[in-house]
Amino acid sequence: MATAEESLRKCLSEKLSAVEIQSNTVRSLKSSSAPKPDIDAAVQALNALKLEKSSIEKSLESLLSASGSNSRKAFRKSVVNTLKRRFFYNSSFQIYGGEAGFFDYGPPGSAVKYNVLSFWRQHFMLEEKMLEVDCPCVTPEVVLKASGHVEKFTDLMVKDEKTGTCYRADHLLKDYCNQKLQEDLTLSSEKAAELKHVLAMLDGFSSQELGAKIKEYGITAPETKNPLSDPYPFNLMFQTSIGPSGSARGFMRPETAQGIFVNFRDLYHYNRDKLPFAAAQIGQAFRNEISPRQGLLRTREFTLAEIEHFVDPEDKSHPKYAKVADLEFFMFSREEQMSGQSAKKIRLGEAVSKGIVNNETLGYFIGRVYLFLTRLSIDKDRLRFRQHLANEMAHYAADCWDAEIECSYGWIECVGIADRSAYDLLAHSEKSGVPLVAHEKFSEPKEVEKLVITPIKKELGLAFKGSQKMVVEALEAMREKEALDMKAALESKGEVEFEVCTLGKTVTINKSMVSIHTEKKKEHQRVFTPSVIEPSFGIGRIIYCLFEHTFYTRQSEAGDEQLNVFRFPSLVAPIKCTVFPLVKNQEFEEVANLISESLTAAGIWHMIDITGTSIGKRYARTDELGVPFAITVDSTTSVTIRERDCKDQVRVDVENVATVIREVTEGQRTWEDLLKLSGVLTACASQPAASDSVSSAEFEKIMG
Amino acid sequence: MATAEESLRKCLSEKLSAVEIQSNTVRSLKSSSAPKPDIDAAVQALNALKLEKSSIEKSLESLLSASGSNSRKAFRKSVVNTLKRRFFYNSSFQIYGGEAGFFDYGPPGSAVKYNVLSFWRQHFMLEEKMLEVDCPCVTPEVVLKASGHVEKFTDLMVKDEKTGTCYRADHLLKDYCNQKLQEDLTLSSEKAAELKHVLAMLDGFSSQELGAKIKEYGITAPETKNPLSDPYPFNLMFQTSIGPSGSARGFMRPETAQGIFVNFRDLYHYNRDKLPFAAAQIGQAFRNEISPRQGLLRTREFTLAEIEHFVDPEDKSHPKYAKVADLEFFMFSREEQMSGQSAKKIRLGEAVSKGIVNNETLGYFIGRVYLFLTRLSIDKDRLRFRQHLANEMAHYAADCWDAEIECSYGWIECVGIADRSAYDLLAHSEKSGVPLVAHEKFSEPKEVEKLVITPIKKELGLAFKGSQKMVVEALEAMREKEALDMKAALESKGEVEFEVCTLGKTVTINKSMVSIHTEKKKEHQRVFTPSVIEPSFGIGRIIYCLFEHTFYTRQSEAGDEQLNVFRFPSLVAPIKCTVFPLVKNQEFEEVANLISESLTAAGIWHMIDITGTSIGKRYARTDELGVPFAITVDSTTSVTIRERDCKDQVRVDVENVATVIREVTEGQRTWEDLLKLSGVLTACASQPAASDSVSSAEFEKIMG
Repeated sequence: MATAEESLRKCLSEKLSAVEIQSNTVRSLKSSSAPKPDIDAAVQALNALKLEKSSIEKSLESLLSASGSNSRKAFRKSVVNTLKRRFFYNSSFQIYGGEAGFFDYGPPGSAVKYNVLSFWRQHFMLEEKMLEVDCPCVTPEVVLKASGHVEKFTDLMVKDEKTGTCYRADHLLKDYCNQKLQEDLTLSSEKAAELKHVLAMLDGFSSQELGAKIKEYGITAPETKNPLSDPYPFNLMFQTSIGPSGSARGFMRPETAQGIFVNFRDLYHYNRDKLPFAAAQIGQAFRNEISPRQGLLRTREFTLAEIEHFVDPEDKSHPKYAKVADLEFFMFSREEQMSGQSAKKIRLGEAVSKGIVNNETLGYFIGRVYLFLTRLSIDKDRLRFRQHLANEMAHYAADCWDAEIECSYGWIECVGIADRSAYDLLAHSEKSGVPLVAHEKFSEPKEVEKLVITPIKKELGLAFKGSQKMVVEALEAMREKEALDMKAALESKGEVEFEVCTLGKTVTINKSMVSIHTEKKKEHQRVFTPSVIEPSFGIGRIIYCLFEHTFYTRQSEAGDEQLNVFRFPSLVAPIKCTVFPLVKNQEFEEVANLISESLTAAGIWHMIDITGTSIGKRYARTDELGVPFAITVDSTTSVTIRERDCKDQVRVDVENVATVIREVTEGQRTWEDLLKLSGVLTACASQPAASDSVSSAEFEKIMG
Repeated sequence: MATAEESLRKCLSEKLSAVEIQSNTVRSLKSSSAPKPDIDAAVQALNALKLEKSSIEKSLESLLSASGSNSRKAFRKSVVNTLKRRFFYNSSFQIYGGEAGFFDYGPPGSAVKYNVLSFWRQHFMLEEKMLEVDCPCVTPEVVLKASGHVEKFTDLMVKDEKTGTCYRADHLLKDYCNQKLQEDLTLSSEKAAELKHVLAMLDGFSSQELGAKIKEYGITAPETKNPLSDPYPFNLMFQTSIGPSGSARGFMRPETAQGIFVNFRDLYHYNRDKLPFAAAQIGQAFRNEISPRQGLLRTREFTLAEIEHFVDPEDKSHPKYAKVADLEFFMFSREEQMSGQSAKKIRLGEAVSKGIVNNETLGYFIGRVYLFLTRLSIDKDRLRFRQHLANEMAHYAADCWDAEIECSYGWIECVGIADRSAYDLLAHSEKSGVPLVAHEKFSEPKEVEKLVITPIKKELGLAFKGSQKMVVEALEAMREKEALDMKAALESKGEVEFEVCTLGKTVTINKSMVSIHTEKKKEHQRVFTPSVIEPSFGIGRIIYCLFEHTFYTRQSEAGDEQLNVFRFPSLVAPIKCTVFPLVKNQEFEEVANLISESLTAAGIWHMIDITGTSIGKRYARTDELGVPFAITVDSTTSVTIRERDCKDQVRVDVENVATVIREVTEGQRTWEDLLKLSGVLTACASQPAASDSVSSAEFEKIMG
């Protein structure tokens, strides 16, 4: 695409120059009163050039809109309209004009969310016997200082220098680049390439880099066109205070993971002091976005489902790894991204064995996430696992992959799967003074060599007087490698330069000031800080992508309307079936109520629609909610069940309806099984077709 | 009890006086050097009196501790110790010293909570086809101003005048009274009665009344004994600000109900503009308690499950009322409370028909709440429905009942069931300007008489000049009754005094200034604000009471230990079964893993315990988590299943285990059914007892 766009931009800019030159020619011919045929010929040439120019413009426009956002925007509009009209979700506090970044799930949306979370519990927690915790959202400052959020959980913000209105700095730059690229046809291909490069690098820009670009491009406040301040960090946590005194700072948690880390000791104990184990938490998280947008994808409050899988850093194998190793899906490694390639389908086992994925446990969870998302009916061709680039990843992380789902907004990070090494437990150990460690008991004591550093205080006192204490502490705090280096240097040179951070300077240490030697010791156990592998799920994002991936439109029977359908699998569908009496009549209504009672007893979420509307309209209404099955009561003994997508129907005895619906929605039986058993009723049966009906006796057999 | 305590207090105070008098006698005899026999006799009498006094003291002490809290405290200690040791829950942020009023649920506690909420969804939402919503916790100020929370969601607080430490005023007074009553044996029976009266009335005390009592009793700050400030209101909402500017005030919601009210219009529309319907929300709520205590019963963040059932105020019947009318349980009506009686067992139908319960819908929900709580295994003899007294109830409420559960802290309000009339919808309509109303379409238009108020602006202008506008508005805003009164007064007296709030004074209105008359109009529908009946569940409180009601201890087999058991029904149990290989051996472990896989496939939450500990110890461990069934692998073909409470065992083939466990935990089959089928194994079978085993063939039959 890039090359076609590039050459079109080049052509266009050449053509523009040609038009300008020819215009000047025409003008000068006219002003010099040249002969009419000359002028006419020049005008004709100019018109021909203009025609060529506008043809190139059109090609460029259509290229940009095809690769670009117009059709995607139209699709999104039709999905979101349907979602809001049927109250899957809507902006919160609407009667008060709404509040940006907050959304309410209505009845079908709440049910989809509940179903996704229930399946998450089954697929991850039950399968791995994870330990669940449920911690408060309000969190004291000390916890989030330790985790680094108080200092670093920020976005860069700029202010309208006159009105004080705030904007996210990177959003303004991004919007500027996108708009230029899409709307400015006169952009040179060099300039277009530059803007594309900025878009690609944007996420890694420092405050200075962002500020410089905003100045360079002359970007101003969108509404007022006023100048903007330099970018500065804004902490995204909602702040509050705990207790009546007003002095204890607290925040609404920005993630649920910290609740697991601070409970590590009790969880490890609950797991009988054994590794590996995983803990999980589902709950609300909060992020006071500077300027929320993209609907459900970037909200100020959202549901997270997070797993912290604790492992021995020396053994990151996983006992069930073989179960996922043969899965094949799109992975987008760091190397492929750096070399400008695209995501490739690859066997997970290959990615792990080649070291593209850091370890088996990380690989195992990538595989499980793939199974989870595709079971929900995320399209596997619009799903990829993208590895973080070195500059995206925290310094402590061993490896990190995002499950990205493509929707009308582009590729969206929906699940992050990171090997965070021992970072979080170490941070909380340090801040709280409580060791968050695991133990490996040796079957018999091991003799180990231990490095012993003994500062000679008398000598150090003579040399450093009042600073002696700081030097002693710095010597004692040396890591093994540093101490061995010092030992070697002292042995060879007799003295060595040594940096004492707490003094802010380097001092000279000589042989008499410290003794460094190894000692043999018997140890009964190994004490270590576990590594943690963290799959973290943005539930709202997954649900939004699910909406887009399952949405389609089809013509009404009469061909006069486009009807909306959500192709939800039963697992996800907010309502499993609707019960319709074919015509408004008391007998059929009673049957519908009886069926409803049996569905309730079987634990199946359903609706009754007893409005007098035509059956076609009622089908359309239920399709738009993604209800997989519609039960039409057209007799008092048997009913038809219609499947949403194929629209085929089967006839079932009234007393078997709940069982059949349970079996097809819970997956013990497929719709195809039912079709085979009963024959298909393609026309809507307005009269009972006894011969097609599945009798109770046959069902007894089927259900064995 | 009260009379026994009273007479003992009276006796004791008489005896104390007698001892004092006799002491004086002895002293004066001694100082006047009376004859030794006289002194001896007086001392002997004194000693006799002292003996009697101390005997009365002992009786009073034992009376107070029996009626009182010592045994309850000991019971609570043993429950809470078990709960914390097994990580059902614990104080949050413990490694940082904890934060009062916040609790983490650990693995078994989270599972109990999930089970309670799942059952709540089935029992209430599925059964009534309720419309679920899921709204954010962060709420803009305007919403909570309309609901009244910004102004009125307060507790009265006092401050230590020197250190600034804050206390809840009513807690200090309550603690003072309780301590006096329990520990001060010299308290006169009149004083005791007074303190008891204060305790009973405490909840209704105004700021002035509380302050006066605190002064009267000389109550000081508990730690420092410093004087206390007068009580003043403290708003209990956690405050924050929304967006980057810092100017938009927001709060963490104090209840989930408001999310339903502000969505009324969309929910009514979703329900095809029909009443009645109910909406429901489960989620976190927040309350910045001044000084949290009583563990899980009063926390700063908690889970609520709330239902808002919207009905036509003119028809509060309920179609399913007959299904609960015959339930009989403890109800504690307003009248019984006022006349000092106790709660009585009564048929719900009788309470409704006698008008004790205001209406059928309210009665229906009371019945459903009773079924819900008892199904969870709340003891029906420690459950009562207490009606609010007139002074407890908001002025707009039609009736209100609390489901109270008795635990070691006394009677605890766990569910509130209130008929809130149209209050909430009216409040939000008024503040937002959006009509939150329902429509009843008439089958044919109705002729109705409408009152028309027409202020005569010319006359009003002459009389009130600049204030004319306010008078006109006030006249137009009159309610029907007020306007009819004015009409009558104008007709009889020619003029009337009329209060104009916006002017802050009363004006004189005469006949020429306003015309009030009735007009006939055709109306096609009735427009009205629905009433709302609100059952609101404090999930943490229900769970805590559940813990206390299901906890018991029993002797170990060896008789040397008291073992803890939670008698959770399967519905609630955090883990449905544990799998134990009888001895550590690879074959048994493989079987255990196979069974675990089949349990996972059947969706059953379970644990494996492969430690080498004795089977007795492992049973005790699992009983303490309230696991109903233990599967012991003692052969490779069949296993024993042991029930937690009766400790009976049955033998089941390995391939049938998951099905059997699912049937007994989901309630398709009882434990008794299994015992009958297979015969009881009372001794722990260390060798396979083939004859007692239920074969696959038999199971096929059973499961038909």
